[in-house]
Amino acid sequence: MKKLIFRFNNQGSQIRLNSKDILGGKGANLAEMARLKLPVPPGFTISTKACDYFYKNNKKIPKKIIQQTKKELIIIEKITKKKFGDLSNPLLVSVRSGSRVSMPGMMDTILNIGLNDETVIALKNKTSNGRFAKDSYRRLIQMYGSVVLGIESHFFEELIENYKLTKGVIQDTELEEDDWDGLIKNFKEIVKEKTKKNFPQDVDEQLSQAISAVFLSWNSKRAKTYRKINSIPDHWGTAVNVQAMVFGNMGNDCATGVAFTRNPSTGKKELFGEYLINAQGEDVVAGTRTPKNLLSMEKSMPKIFQQLKKIFKQLENRYKDMQDIEFTVENNKLWMLQTRSGKRTARAAIKIAVDMVKEKLILNRDAILRVDPNTLDTLLHPTLDEKSEKKIIASGLPASPGAASGKVTFSADEAESLKEQKQDTILVRVETSPEDINGMHAAKGILTARGGMTSHAAVVARGMGKPCVSGSNEIKVDYENKLFKSNEYIVKEGDVITIDGGSGKVMLGEVPTVKPEISGDFSKLMIWADQFRKLKVRTNSETPADTKIARDFGAEGIGLCRTEHMFFNEKRIISVRQMILSKTTEDRQEALAKLLPYQKSDFFEIFKIMNGLPVTVRLLDPPLHEFLPKTEKDIGDIAKELNITTNDIKSRIIELHEQNPMLGHRGCRLGISFPEIYQMQCQAIFEALAECKKKKIKLVIPEIMIPLVSTASEIKILRNLVEKTAKAIQKIHSIKIKYYVGTMIELPRAALRANDIAKYADFFSFGTNDLTQTTFGISRDDSGKFLNDYVENNIFYEDPFVSIDERGVGELIKIATERGRMRKKSLKLGICGEHGGDPSSIEFCEKAKLNYVSCSPYRVPVARLAAAQAYLKKK
Amino acid sequence: MKKLIFRFNNQGSQIRLNSKDILGGKGANLAEMARLKLPVPPGFTISTKACDYFYKNNKKIPKKIIQQTKKELIIIEKITKKKFGDLSNPLLVSVRSGSRVSMPGMMDTILNIGLNDETVIALKNKTSNGRFAKDSYRRLIQMYGSVVLGIESHFFEELIENYKLTKGVIQDTELEEDDWDGLIKNFKEIVKEKTKKNFPQDVDEQLSQAISAVFLSWNSKRAKTYRKINSIPDHWGTAVNVQAMVFGNMGNDCATGVAFTRNPSTGKKELFGEYLINAQGEDVVAGTRTPKNLLSMEKSMPKIFQQLKKIFKQLENRYKDMQDIEFTVENNKLWMLQTRSGKRTARAAIKIAVDMVKEKLILNRDAILRVDPNTLDTLLHPTLDEKSEKKIIASGLPASPGAASGKVTFSADEAESLKEQKQDTILVRVETSPEDINGMHAAKGILTARGGMTSHAAVVARGMGKPCVSGSNEIKVDYENKLFKSNEYIVKEGDVITIDGGSGKVMLGEVPTVKPEISGDFSKLMIWADQFRKLKVRTNSETPADTKIARDFGAEGIGLCRTEHMFFNEKRIISVRQMILSKTTEDRQEALAKLLPYQKSDFFEIFKIMNGLPVTVRLLDPPLHEFLPKTEKDIGDIAKELNITTNDIKSRIIELHEQNPMLGHRGCRLGISFPEIYQMQCQAIFEALAECKKKKIKLVIPEIMIPLVSTASEIKILRNLVEKTAKAIQKIHSIKIKYYVGTMIELPRAALRANDIAKYADFFSFGTNDLTQTTFGISRDDSGKFLNDYVENNIFYEDPFVSIDERGVGELIKIATERGRMRKKSLKLGICGEHGGDPSSIEFCEKAKLNYVSCSPYRVPVARLAAAQAYLKKK
Repeated sequence: MKKLIFRFNNQGSQIRLNSKDILGGKGANLAEMARLKLPVPPGFTISTKACDYFYKNNKKIPKKIIQQTKKELIIIEKITKKKFGDLSNPLLVSVRSGSRVSMPGMMDTILNIGLNDETVIALKNKTSNGRFAKDSYRRLIQMYGSVVLGIESHFFEELIENYKLTKGVIQDTELEEDDWDGLIKNFKEIVKEKTKKNFPQDVDEQLSQAISAVFLSWNSKRAKTYRKINSIPDHWGTAVNVQAMVFGNMGNDCATGVAFTRNPSTGKKELFGEYLINAQGEDVVAGTRTPKNLLSMEKSMPKIFQQLKKIFKQLENRYKDMQDIEFTVENNKLWMLQTRSGKRTARAAIKIAVDMVKEKLILNRDAILRVDPNTLDTLLHPTLDEKSEKKIIASGLPASPGAASGKVTFSADEAESLKEQKQDTILVRVETSPEDINGMHAAKGILTARGGMTSHAAVVARGMGKPCVSGSNEIKVDYENKLFKSNEYIVKEGDVITIDGGSGKVMLGEVPTVKPEISGDFSKLMIWADQFRKLKVRTNSETPADTKIARDFGAEGIGLCRTEHMFFNEKRIISVRQMILSKTTEDRQEALAKLLPYQKSDFFEIFKIMNGLPVTVRLLDPPLHEFLPKTEKDIGDIAKELNITTNDIKSRIIELHEQNPMLGHRGCRLGISFPEIYQMQCQAIFEALAECKKKKIKLVIPEIMIPLVSTASEIKILRNLVEKTAKAIQKIHSIKIKYYVGTMIELPRAALRANDIAKYADFFSFGTNDLTQTTFGISRDDSGKFLNDYVENNIFYEDPFVSIDERGVGELIKIATERGRMRKKSLKLGICGEHGGDPSSIEFCEKAKLNYVSCSPYRVPVARLAAAQAYLKKK
Repeated sequence: MKKLIFRFNNQGSQIRLNSKDILGGKGANLAEMARLKLPVPPGFTISTKACDYFYKNNKKIPKKIIQQTKKELIIIEKITKKKFGDLSNPLLVSVRSGSRVSMPGMMDTILNIGLNDETVIALKNKTSNGRFAKDSYRRLIQMYGSVVLGIESHFFEELIENYKLTKGVIQDTELEEDDWDGLIKNFKEIVKEKTKKNFPQDVDEQLSQAISAVFLSWNSKRAKTYRKINSIPDHWGTAVNVQAMVFGNMGNDCATGVAFTRNPSTGKKELFGEYLINAQGEDVVAGTRTPKNLLSMEKSMPKIFQQLKKIFKQLENRYKDMQDIEFTVENNKLWMLQTRSGKRTARAAIKIAVDMVKEKLILNRDAILRVDPNTLDTLLHPTLDEKSEKKIIASGLPASPGAASGKVTFSADEAESLKEQKQDTILVRVETSPEDINGMHAAKGILTARGGMTSHAAVVARGMGKPCVSGSNEIKVDYENKLFKSNEYIVKEGDVITIDGGSGKVMLGEVPTVKPEISGDFSKLMIWADQFRKLKVRTNSETPADTKIARDFGAEGIGLCRTEHMFFNEKRIISVRQMILSKTTEDRQEALAKLLPYQKSDFFEIFKIMNGLPVTVRLLDPPLHEFLPKTEKDIGDIAKELNITTNDIKSRIIELHEQNPMLGHRGCRLGISFPEIYQMQCQAIFEALAECKKKKIKLVIPEIMIPLVSTASEIKILRNLVEKTAKAIQKIHSIKIKYYVGTMIELPRAALRANDIAKYADFFSFGTNDLTQTTFGISRDDSGKFLNDYVENNIFYEDPFVSIDERGVGELIKIATERGRMRKKSLKLGICGEHGGDPSSIEFCEKAKLNYVSCSPYRVPVARLAAAQAYLKKK
């Protein structure tokens, strides 16, 4: 067995930098703070490796570790001059978990280990504070009962609440020593009743059981859920930190607090935090008492405040990043309990990264890697329209920026199931807890009645990049009747509300939103990203409006213009339907002739905006039946319009019905069956170009894309059609038009036959949505029925429709890339599935040496940043 | 330019054996007969290479070829002592096409070239037979008009028919010289009218135009269609045979005939053929006159008959195969015009192959390669039930064996379109012609009113392995009113009839059929095949009846037992539906418990029949909604039965509805979501084995197959479920059960991840139906809408659902095989898609080194033979 226990104290630490894998994040940071000689209570970390031994040893702590633990305790005893279990000056310790990456609220913590019926008296005597001693003891029983013995916490909480009601007090602080004595008795009775055993008086047993419990908590349901959501491997394990207790709740010269070295919401360089006088750590984060702003400490504890400021600077210099800190003041002495890289909003992340470059703490390439591209979304999506009417019904803390509307729901499960029905929800809770993680993931936004800016709800929402209003004291949640009251308003489950996490306002109904404005630090970061990326970023767009947005966001071309989207317009759908209902080629051509001017003018508008940038136009892709009317009324209307019988239409609908439309008569198969459709579309493209030429608009080079190709013959035939059409239009308008013809690679066979297909293609665009569907044999539309079972069974860690499945779909992309370029060195390669806006998929595209990614307009900045990160990570 | 013209005559030939690629089949055989010194009219062959030059030379005959042709004509003139275009003793020649493989009736022939208004008089004088000379001249005009000038043949035929009606005669032979003179005048007028030119009097022009026409006929529509159906490459081209004419129509010491060296219908070693006295070749094959049995020639032309018998033996000794021969007797001299390997029925093919081994003409490995496995079908499929009542309405010649029922249709197009609607048809024609090929392909059987055993209909039907009754004089076809009369019966389009090509009987309605009996030569051939094959042959079966048939046909195991087929039984479907409608796991288990005994007894029966052979059981595969009731009535019934509301059922149907069921919640995805279903199925398998053990039946080793796997995790989880169930059952019954667990490879991702998957699989079975669907992204059910367009555009040469697409799907199979075996050397590999019974796919499986193929029971012998051929061809 290698070294499994690592000491830290005022002498420094037993391990060097970057030891998170072994010590966990918390342990590594404690060790680091000790190295920096910051005031850290003495302690030691049992490494993550031990977690592995623990599980291999039948979930028992190996004897060697117990022996070493005892040795380390002696060292702590020497430093603190206290003794564990001593009847005159007892040492108390905390036991905390800590894994490689922060899992806030996920793992368990037990404080005050070492107290029993006898040592509690010693503590009382030693501190001359009976109330404090008893309060500490009841906390131990409560935490130990919950974490080690599995007794649900509310059994203890209810006792306190009832007692307070009887006594007519509100705050725990109003309870006296005698009150706690009574409650301790009751707590111990609960333990006896639930476990048939007494609360352990043996302090060694307390310690070893606590360590076991931390290891066991690694495999608790909520920890597993968190890991699944965040793609954290199960085998990492957790470390255990055992540390001498310091107390923020020994009197009014005591305090406990959390702080950030900068503002985690705005990124501003300012002290930001909250503290409570005479409280223990849990009181701050649990949101049970509303804490004070850290700045007020300058007055209440000026010495400590200055000391903290100095330490913050030291930590930022050391970590080159914003820190999230926990501290305790015990009888006017500051103790640092934790430091870690702080979670922040996207806005803050950008400001901090750009500021730190200015401050020369980091390089601009580091700044690029500091911002999670996925969070940019929150900055890019619309915010509340200032001018729109708002019925504000409550306000709270602006805990996580962004605006969201949705149906009110009071349970995480309900939020989840509504999400499956594609309904937007706002999750409303008194306060959130780790059990709510799934629901927070599912909801569009979170609103809580209690808790501060660092409450569970606020921290998790910021991490998820979701709007959150926390601590809105005005709202009274009534879970039983599924409603909340706020002033004169009653909001029921299912009613729509809007929350603005930037202002902390809660509004009735859905409030319109406006386009976000991008500038300053954001633009600077984007410019840096552009300097470092190799992948071009295009957009998927088919309307002038979207195209404009995408250009503003920095799109360098259109990677996918879905021409069929242009067909759904009210004026055009009639002609589209006429075309589909045609029985002869001639009738079809007549209907197509009506569509031509529309398509032409759409292309003209888009080409104008793109001003010379590449535009990939995909010819008609979906099966024709998608355009047919569905309701009786629509069928009647169209029959009248086209002067045919409804029966004609119905029989055509039956004729066109498909068992599996995804695998049916669509894509280039339509082009083969009805070449006149593709011919019209090409004519529209080329005539739009002729129009541009006439109006002296810079010509784009259209990339005409043939969808759903599986054989070289298909593209050969259709390329020929495009070329013939181009020739004809060029002749008519006496112009020379440059264009490319290529294909989507969205079927496994196309990937395998890329060599043949490349002969007739100037470019490939990977249609990863369909390629994922066919490679897995999973219909995205139908996958909802089993996807949950798949995630629960660890079959899918990531939804393959969100991030490219590198091992399956990715191999086909690599095969196609290799074989395509083997045939044609100049082949241009891109991706236009929704994966094109997903950072981890973009990282794959960089590795696979594609030329560009294409994504929806709002994902363009995400893709630009992700592409830069992909390039930097590859290097 | 290489040598392009090859001479053959009584001196021998200019080319050695196996020259079909260059001379075409007909030319090569003429050359070979000349080598054997058989009496072949002198001539020469213009090679297939010249066809290529012809097309490259703008569809004109290169000058060099014309010059060489003239030289060769002089040699023919010397031998025949006649001169081309001579006014006293004119040489006449025939021009015939001949490609590498026989394309019966596809290519064009022109006879009597060299006749004009002057030479016809010379011929009359020389032969002292004015009627013969004029008849020959009108035939030239007619054939030249049709083939070279593109005048539809019926214009000429109608003139003859009208003239005969006016004159009150029936047979052409009843027409005199004067009659033909008049018709020649009329024929020339038609030529003038249709082409605005006179019929060419220049004999050199006649010859070169005829040669051009043969080359051009290579790209005629019907030739292209035939090539497409038979997978003949377009670039092969045709050769042209120019040969001195001999005449079977110069009087009663003349004859023309066709013969087979053995009976092509039964395979019996006997002279088989037909001839006509005083007729030209076309008269026999066109079926316009009903010819005489060749055996009667022993009396009418005894010397010739004996000579023919000798030649037949020479030819069989040379070609080691049954020959199909054309001959002509001119003034009591025999001339051999053609020999080729004869088409035959499957029954004949087997008998001939086995007999020739006995005769030591060939080895048994040659015999195996002589029989087309696809044709075995005709022997295996049921024949008419002797005992059943038959309403015989007509009889004709037993032209191609087998029985078939279907709706009467009178046009090839209609037969084709009914086939698309999956309707069986019998194509009824006066006589068939190459234009009918598509319809003959589509129909289940062919019935003609005219034509002999060697008529177009008969030859083509035998080639296709389809039942055919030809020359049924009793039936009168009325195309206009879409009916035929036969004696007192009137049969309309759409009425069902049955034909028996073995007896020549035509019956009203559908006649029941019986299982064919396999024995004698067939069994011998199968035993030989088994000695030469490496691939095992299993069957796809899930009923005791089918399993029995498959065993009788030699199946060596079950490769696919689709357990869901067992669910559709009337008694069980209720429980299946109850299971699906269950809302809780408990309800589902209750319903499953009812299904268990059924499944168990099914497995028991099958295991009993298989008696120790391997049985692959696929766990539930289709989406659950397939089992739900579809009609209002069924929904009502089931609601009553299960005591729930119809709305409950309807909402469940909506809930289970899928956009793309093929890619939906099916296969192992059901096993992951509802493990209790798979658990029940495994329990049934293992309990059936326990039952076998108890009853001392030889235990099969079940191969439990998990369908639709795309990740290793799926099979890992489900293998675990199988193992747990096995353990439990083994414990209960205190027995040891051997079994394997494997998966279908039917999704591209499964093929790519075969390495991971093989870790948990003992075997892979390629589900090539679904693998083809996902690799191409084509739903088989929906492909009908564009498959025709794809065949017409040469995108698909073969339907990928019939023969494995080697370049796409095949690569995935190879990848999976390689990667799977890399992980697990012992991995057993098979194929269970419908491709398992397709000879060309079986050839691929042999190349891909699979262990077995599995196919439907009736395809088992086909697969056994095809597997042997695949092995022999590979070597």
